[in-house]
Amino acid sequence: MTELRTQSTAGRSPRGVPGTVRRPAERHEATTLLELARAEVDPVLRAAIASLPGPMRRIARYHFGWEHADGTPASGGSGKAIRPALVLASASALGGPGARAASLRAAAAVELVHNFTLLHDDVMDRDTTRRHRPTAWTVFGDADAILAGDALQALALRLLAEDGHRAAPLAAARLADCVIELCAGQHADTAMERRAPQEVTLDETLAMAEAKTGALLGCACALGALYAGASDAEVRALDAFGRQAGLAFQLIDDVIGIWGDPGRTGKPAGADLAARKKSLPVVAALTSGSPAATELAALYAAPHAKGDLEHTREDLERITSAVERAGGRDWAQAQAADRMARAMQELARAVPDPEGAGGLLSLAEFVTRRTT
Amino acid sequence: MTELRTQSTAGRSPRGVPGTVRRPAERHEATTLLELARAEVDPVLRAAIASLPGPMRRIARYHFGWEHADGTPASGGSGKAIRPALVLASASALGGPGARAASLRAAAAVELVHNFTLLHDDVMDRDTTRRHRPTAWTVFGDADAILAGDALQALALRLLAEDGHRAAPLAAARLADCVIELCAGQHADTAMERRAPQEVTLDETLAMAEAKTGALLGCACALGALYAGASDAEVRALDAFGRQAGLAFQLIDDVIGIWGDPGRTGKPAGADLAARKKSLPVVAALTSGSPAATELAALYAAPHAKGDLEHTREDLERITSAVERAGGRDWAQAQAADRMARAMQELARAVPDPEGAGGLLSLAEFVTRRTT
Repeated sequence: MTELRTQSTAGRSPRGVPGTVRRPAERHEATTLLELARAEVDPVLRAAIASLPGPMRRIARYHFGWEHADGTPASGGSGKAIRPALVLASASALGGPGARAASLRAAAAVELVHNFTLLHDDVMDRDTTRRHRPTAWTVFGDADAILAGDALQALALRLLAEDGHRAAPLAAARLADCVIELCAGQHADTAMERRAPQEVTLDETLAMAEAKTGALLGCACALGALYAGASDAEVRALDAFGRQAGLAFQLIDDVIGIWGDPGRTGKPAGADLAARKKSLPVVAALTSGSPAATELAALYAAPHAKGDLEHTREDLERITSAVERAGGRDWAQAQAADRMARAMQELARAVPDPEGAGGLLSLAEFVTRRTT
Repeated sequence: MTELRTQSTAGRSPRGVPGTVRRPAERHEATTLLELARAEVDPVLRAAIASLPGPMRRIARYHFGWEHADGTPASGGSGKAIRPALVLASASALGGPGARAASLRAAAAVELVHNFTLLHDDVMDRDTTRRHRPTAWTVFGDADAILAGDALQALALRLLAEDGHRAAPLAAARLADCVIELCAGQHADTAMERRAPQEVTLDETLAMAEAKTGALLGCACALGALYAGASDAEVRALDAFGRQAGLAFQLIDDVIGIWGDPGRTGKPAGADLAARKKSLPVVAALTSGSPAATELAALYAAPHAKGDLEHTREDLERITSAVERAGGRDWAQAQAADRMARAMQELARAVPDPEGAGGLLSLAEFVTRRTT
């Protein structure tokens, strides 16, 4: 699963989907929605984690940023609660405050699933940093990180099984189905990274991004709709809204990963290129059939040279330029705009009243950094 | 999770709980119950696995022994269906044929959870053989084995979420809770294996075995009871029955792992000792305070020497003798008898009619190899 890279709305990169009409009020609204979601879901999450047996609890609390590795309290952020906020906003949009309040457990369950996948993905990808801290497997070992992830998945589905709401069984089935899609997405990602760049198609890269990133955002929206007693068509439309917004997010995240400001993203620009990641703009460039694509393929075939800083800088500049000249950046930005347009269509289908759809719109614009 | 080592009732080791009254008819009954459970649950399992995305499906089918690594059909056994048989037998004992038929999905869910833990445990323990075949991680890599395990857990809980039965939410919550206990048990096991032998207590070894092996057998029985509409007290008693029978099984399995016939167990006798495993008879011996315990501690402190067959044989003989002289074998057999007696008490509490309890009794005796 990809974590959102921005840490706050302040100082966000002005890059985004071209041609966006910016509404300053929305930024505040999304921030408020996220803060509210965090404040309301955290007690449910903390109570659920507190019910785990000692060692599993300790690893989970470390992962969430609530404790240091030695068990002392920490004040680190546990992420931005985008997914819980989407559950609550969907329930609110289609069912009002009552549905919103009823969907708190579902919001916590989605956040638990997200964090279970982060724990496991970090083990598989050998990622050493998460939310500016060493990943759980580097601190507790692979086995404990795998076990803590397993326990969080079980906890998520237990929360829904214990929820007396009539939507709970449908929500649980949908969340379990989403976990299976997330697994398939992570499998596709790791399998693609092992293949030669010229063997990877743009369609499969988009499908992978949808499974890995879009699926859980879509599921979050669908769960909120289920708790609001929405119709099948509304649930489907909100799922599609979340998926398309998730894809737009991933496209923009990949663009920022290449051209963005490292001070703002928390990740050095070019890290994806140095790792020869087959991100969406790169695959679009590689499959463009242009002379720059041939140049890029040759550059990507050579592993990144570490150590010589000057050489490293030149290598990354050459790759960045080739991706841009091959149209990777333009394609990604146009695709992101297209995905956001589709997301808006789906949102309008599920929630025709613009006032009611406001919260979901703000959150979608927040994740895709369309506001300044 | 520990797999049962016997492959069939025929040719089973006569070792078992001392003082057992053997009833020849039961062997047949247990075998029939297991065969019936396999035949009835397999279609549900296969349909569930068939719903997985391609790559996850392939790994799961390999793991279950239904396919070779290249995707061609295989006829390997997927285990003995002890846990599904316990679900069905419990439902039948307390609710008759209707409850038994209604609990099929729950039986499949328990089997999926069992197999998810096997996939993950094999990754963590670096075990290379499972059911006489290379483990999934050795064939598909760690990442795919972890992902397939994650997907099987989700599939198990989805089966229950989609089950319209009124017991399904309670069953799902209980199964999710059991997964958390299994994770804690596996954590305790891996943590104990890293510690010095003299630091491990018998109580924590028994607690670990209960969490790792007893919990899922207990959960299987509890789920069957829930589908039969049993009272809380009956559900608790059947859970305790399964747990105690699971502990008895583990004790006997550990005894056979040291003194058993390798041709019958599928695992060479002494493998646990060669790996310096802190199995129940070994910890009982180490904590006995006898001179043989001191001798055993010194032998266990030296890693097992590989290569020199003569030396290896002598090393294992010396350790085996020390465990026996320190009372590890007698203790384990007495404990197993005690646990089986407790299991029988719990069974009588939940199902007072001996006729109705017959199936569960046969299965408990089968797993602990009390019949010949």
